[in-house]
Amino acid sequence: MNETTHRTNEAAQTLDGWYALHDFRYIDWNAWKQADDGHKKEALQDLNTIVQGWEQAQTEKVGSHAMYYIVGQKADLMFMNLRESMDQLGELETALNQSAIAPFLIPAYSYVSVVELSNYMAKPGSDPMENPEVVARLKPVLPKSKHICFYPMNKKRDGQDNWYMLSMDERRSMMRSHGLIGRSYAGKVKQIITGSVGFDDWEWGVTLFADDPLQFKKLVYEMRFDEVSARYGEFGEFFVGNLVDREGIEHLLK
Amino acid sequence: MNETTHRTNEAAQTLDGWYALHDFRYIDWNAWKQADDGHKKEALQDLNTIVQGWEQAQTEKVGSHAMYYIVGQKADLMFMNLRESMDQLGELETALNQSAIAPFLIPAYSYVSVVELSNYMAKPGSDPMENPEVVARLKPVLPKSKHICFYPMNKKRDGQDNWYMLSMDERRSMMRSHGLIGRSYAGKVKQIITGSVGFDDWEWGVTLFADDPLQFKKLVYEMRFDEVSARYGEFGEFFVGNLVDREGIEHLLK
Amino acid sequence: MNETTHRTNEAAQTLDGWYALHDFRYIDWNAWKQADDGHKKEALQDLNTIVQGWEQAQTEKVGSHAMYYIVGQKADLMFMNLRESMDQLGELETALNQSAIAPFLIPAYSYVSVVELSNYMAKPGSDPMENPEVVARLKPVLPKSKHICFYPMNKKRDGQDNWYMLSMDERRSMMRSHGLIGRSYAGKVKQIITGSVGFDDWEWGVTLFADDPLQFKKLVYEMRFDEVSARYGEFGEFFVGNLVDREGIEHLLK
Amino acid sequence: MNETTHRTNEAAQTLDGWYALHDFRYIDWNAWKQADDGHKKEALQDLNTIVQGWEQAQTEKVGSHAMYYIVGQKADLMFMNLRESMDQLGELETALNQSAIAPFLIPAYSYVSVVELSNYMAKPGSDPMENPEVVARLKPVLPKSKHICFYPMNKKRDGQDNWYMLSMDERRSMMRSHGLIGRSYAGKVKQIITGSVGFDDWEWGVTLFADDPLQFKKLVYEMRFDEVSARYGEFGEFFVGNLVDREGIEHLLK
Amino acid sequence: MNETTHRTNEAAQTLDGWYALHDFRYIDWNAWKQADDGHKKEALQDLNTIVQGWEQAQTEKVGSHAMYYIVGQKADLMFMNLRESMDQLGELETALNQSAIAPFLIPAYSYVSVVELSNYMAKPGSDPMENPEVVARLKPVLPKSKHICFYPMNKKRDGQDNWYMLSMDERRSMMRSHGLIGRSYAGKVKQIITGSVGFDDWEWGVTLFADDPLQFKKLVYEMRFDEVSARYGEFGEFFVGNLVDREGIEHLLK
Repeated sequence: MNETTHRTNEAAQTLDGWYALHDFRYIDWNAWKQADDGHKKEALQDLNTIVQGWEQAQTEKVGSHAMYYIVGQKADLMFMNLRESMDQLGELETALNQSAIAPFLIPAYSYVSVVELSNYMAKPGSDPMENPEVVARLKPVLPKSKHICFYPMNKKRDGQDNWYMLSMDERRSMMRSHGLIGRSYAGKVKQIITGSVGFDDWEWGVTLFADDPLQFKKLVYEMRFDEVSARYGEFGEFFVGNLVDREGIEHLLK
Repeated sequence: MNETTHRTNEAAQTLDGWYALHDFRYIDWNAWKQADDGHKKEALQDLNTIVQGWEQAQTEKVGSHAMYYIVGQKADLMFMNLRESMDQLGELETALNQSAIAPFLIPAYSYVSVVELSNYMAKPGSDPMENPEVVARLKPVLPKSKHICFYPMNKKRDGQDNWYMLSMDERRSMMRSHGLIGRSYAGKVKQIITGSVGFDDWEWGVTLFADDPLQFKKLVYEMRFDEVSARYGEFGEFFVGNLVDREGIEHLLK
Repeated sequence: MNETTHRTNEAAQTLDGWYALHDFRYIDWNAWKQADDGHKKEALQDLNTIVQGWEQAQTEKVGSHAMYYIVGQKADLMFMNLRESMDQLGELETALNQSAIAPFLIPAYSYVSVVELSNYMAKPGSDPMENPEVVARLKPVLPKSKHICFYPMNKKRDGQDNWYMLSMDERRSMMRSHGLIGRSYAGKVKQIITGSVGFDDWEWGVTLFADDPLQFKKLVYEMRFDEVSARYGEFGEFFVGNLVDREGIEHLLK
Repeated sequence: MNETTHRTNEAAQTLDGWYALHDFRYIDWNAWKQADDGHKKEALQDLNTIVQGWEQAQTEKVGSHAMYYIVGQKADLMFMNLRESMDQLGELETALNQSAIAPFLIPAYSYVSVVELSNYMAKPGSDPMENPEVVARLKPVLPKSKHICFYPMNKKRDGQDNWYMLSMDERRSMMRSHGLIGRSYAGKVKQIITGSVGFDDWEWGVTLFADDPLQFKKLVYEMRFDEVSARYGEFGEFFVGNLVDREGIEHLLK
Repeated sequence: MNETTHRTNEAAQTLDGWYALHDFRYIDWNAWKQADDGHKKEALQDLNTIVQGWEQAQTEKVGSHAMYYIVGQKADLMFMNLRESMDQLGELETALNQSAIAPFLIPAYSYVSVVELSNYMAKPGSDPMENPEVVARLKPVLPKSKHICFYPMNKKRDGQDNWYMLSMDERRSMMRSHGLIGRSYAGKVKQIITGSVGFDDWEWGVTLFADDPLQFKKLVYEMRFDEVSARYGEFGEFFVGNLVDREGIEHLLK
């Protein structure tokens, strides 16, 4: 039934950049309504201090962040933070939890991963980390697009549809065509892939940024007809949201 | 095992209209019973203000809404709102959460999508957006039918039953026969399809309106024997409900 | 891989009777223990009023009901109600939720469906609704058997095991043999099938009544070796319970 | 695709004994710590009374029980009770819920089943209920082994791996070899099989007793390589625990 | 369809060492913020006492422990403890739950298993327990690496991909190549395999220790292309964390 000699396929090597924490929170609207003005003020001050810290990290180019209001009941806010180490992710998560805003921000979902570039398209002989474009993609400044879309995904390992049993050539050929679709949305959708094997429950996180949310639907739908997604894609929950800044959060919590 | 050259199938193009938020809520019956008259009055006033805003949007043809009482324990109320942008969906969701009725309306389930027409049947050469009938279907006034049925669904990608690996011709042929079943219920069931790829966990939401709820069962059951559902349909939770208006909600919360 | 011409199989027509709400509740034992005598008295009075209303509906032949204590932690009580319309189901659910017993009866699970007879065995040419036996089965008086068993189920659509891709003849042949097993339990188990396509998450609900609960096990186990269950049956949660009346519930809440 | 004549396989007949309730509970450590001495004393007295009732049932040979501390967060305590009827299971569950210890014992998981012997090995012509050994196995005194292991399971019905489509001969042959593995653990592991078709979400519950918990691992692991488990076994949650008596529970709740 | 004579494959024998409890906890940040200084002090004293007991067990070589801060919302802290018996695991879990820190440490996830070495590579004729290296691996001192990764896993039993239907030779050959990948990470990643068949919901727990968390991703990803993972691996939740000591926890709970 099974051959005695088995296959160990060539793993795709990856380039890994900043660590990423996607931190989705519910607003505890009832607790907020019932809080007295002193608590509210302290909470908003702490939130401001925290976000200012994130902004400073971005200015110092040791991290980047994004804040979005999530539409629907899956969450109310998403904080996405990139940092140079897993320790720093833990520290900024703890700082939020220790703050006076935390009692009003109930955990909804989170994702731990690291910015990743796959080397399916790598040119042999070159050191990609010498390429400033590559470095910029591994340690990106997150855009201020009006909308965000996040979902985690796996490559399927199910009977005849087993990505990890394909040869490197087969995988490279599929990823090339997949990448062409992505590139056709250049200027409309910015895509950040983060790898999470060993870190979280899915193999990758996909974070899309766009000013027109319909572009998320068009891009993901078009890709679904591509064999790499059609046969090998497994998808987790999808989150979609609208850009907010500090003032926007204060406006929510008026 | 797998061919080296792979398929990228032609994606079905879609026409996209208003954004849709289905917002299912439990009534917190215990909190309501324990609330004092002042809180109750304020809560009902806020609800009235909110629904009046929805009615105005409908009058101004910048949106539409529907309100139903959900039978069974999955939820008590469903608010469905159509708006021109994802931002507006977020704003009306926030307005509800900020209001004095919110502490009595616990989130139960939600769905984020956009009204969609697939172009499997499109006539080549014509611009569908010039067709007032098409526009009316993309930006519909939701009917006041006595009953509603909502469920999300996917097209399956499982071994031999993989919708996204089929050719456009195969898909078009199946969708045509599927549509014929739907059309045979004209006058009995009004159907609004919303697309949610990139927005929520399933690929489509189906919202059915009818005065006789048995027609939901007959329609969905008949379709299940159609190959497009039998082999390729994956279904999420089903919700069924009875029409309510503002007075009806006040009667619930007597 | 797939034929261009596809199959639309003949759907089994159904006869539909009364709407059904299975309403499973936990008793909030702690809240009950902590309630003062006034609240307890009011709660039991409301429960009595509600159940008396159900009894009256049964007397007037516009509905029927059953009450059982559920064994194990899935629920404590199950109220099953049959009514002529979905609106009436909603109204009786609301009446319970508005009552003073509701704070002590936490929702555990519910099921919305409609009493259904499949016509796989229908005689051509006859109008089944002229048959008083058929009408009695569509609008049944629920028995006072000592025990109940409830479970929802689907017919599978999985690769080679796809009920909805079978021809009417194949399905009729299997259902006939399935029915023979059921009939061999006549006098021991009374079975009420309710259809829930379009109403709830499974396609059917099965409610069994017996004085000896072992007969549930024997019947369901024997059927599982029948091809229609073995290959095509998918089953949800199983609930089993003991008959209670109003006095029995008061005894629980002593 | 499918033959028109279908199979109804011979169902394995079972011998059924006492009904079984496995009742897993969390200890509400916080509530216990905050309770005053009066409440604690009353709670422990009620627990003592209840367990004494169980002990009396065991003395009178109308039931049996076991109490274990569950390791890990799935539960803190498991009460297993065998009784002659489903009504008695309901009554003892209610007695616990009505007692003063109940507010400190939060439901974690439960299982409703009946002690079962399959007759795959039955000798034709004999009446097994005349055999005192068989009766003792159907109405067993639960051992006081130091450790317990409980898990529910199904026989698979998935494509080519469909237990219920096998002939009686095929099933008998596999069950024989399966039983041989079990018997090789005689003296180390005592196994009680309870059937739950029609009663709970899985088809069987397996309760293992041993003084050395490693024997659970060895037995279950060895069986997993047996075709009846390897191809046809589906397993639910596993619980493992340490024997406690009344004093042990009082020691927990010091 | 199935052969009448069936296979019982040779089970891999295992060497079993210390029992393991992975105990993941949320910090109840809100309760901590609201606690008065007396309660906080008592809670931290109890935590100190408990951890000192763990340290003493490690000094006395009757156990070992590890403490990590978990990144993301799945948990805040993980306590991993190895002990000589299942009883001792239960006792240390109870000691934590009885302590004054417990009200601030909400259960998030746990795993019960036993340190295991498979004997796929065992040399015939030798008694492995005479080998001090083997004993050291079965009763290990957990390292103080900066990061931890934990995930549970199964070997798949799904149609053609059924690990337990393979011959010992096939399994041994795959495990050998699998082990080679693991060994190539020597010095970067320390791996402890614990077996949980009969103890918890998955068959194995994998605990990885590294100073560079990227090595977790590289190791797990590379293994995923190995047939033993690609075809036969099923994975549960992944947890990743940063080393903390007693002072670190006090710093969290400042």
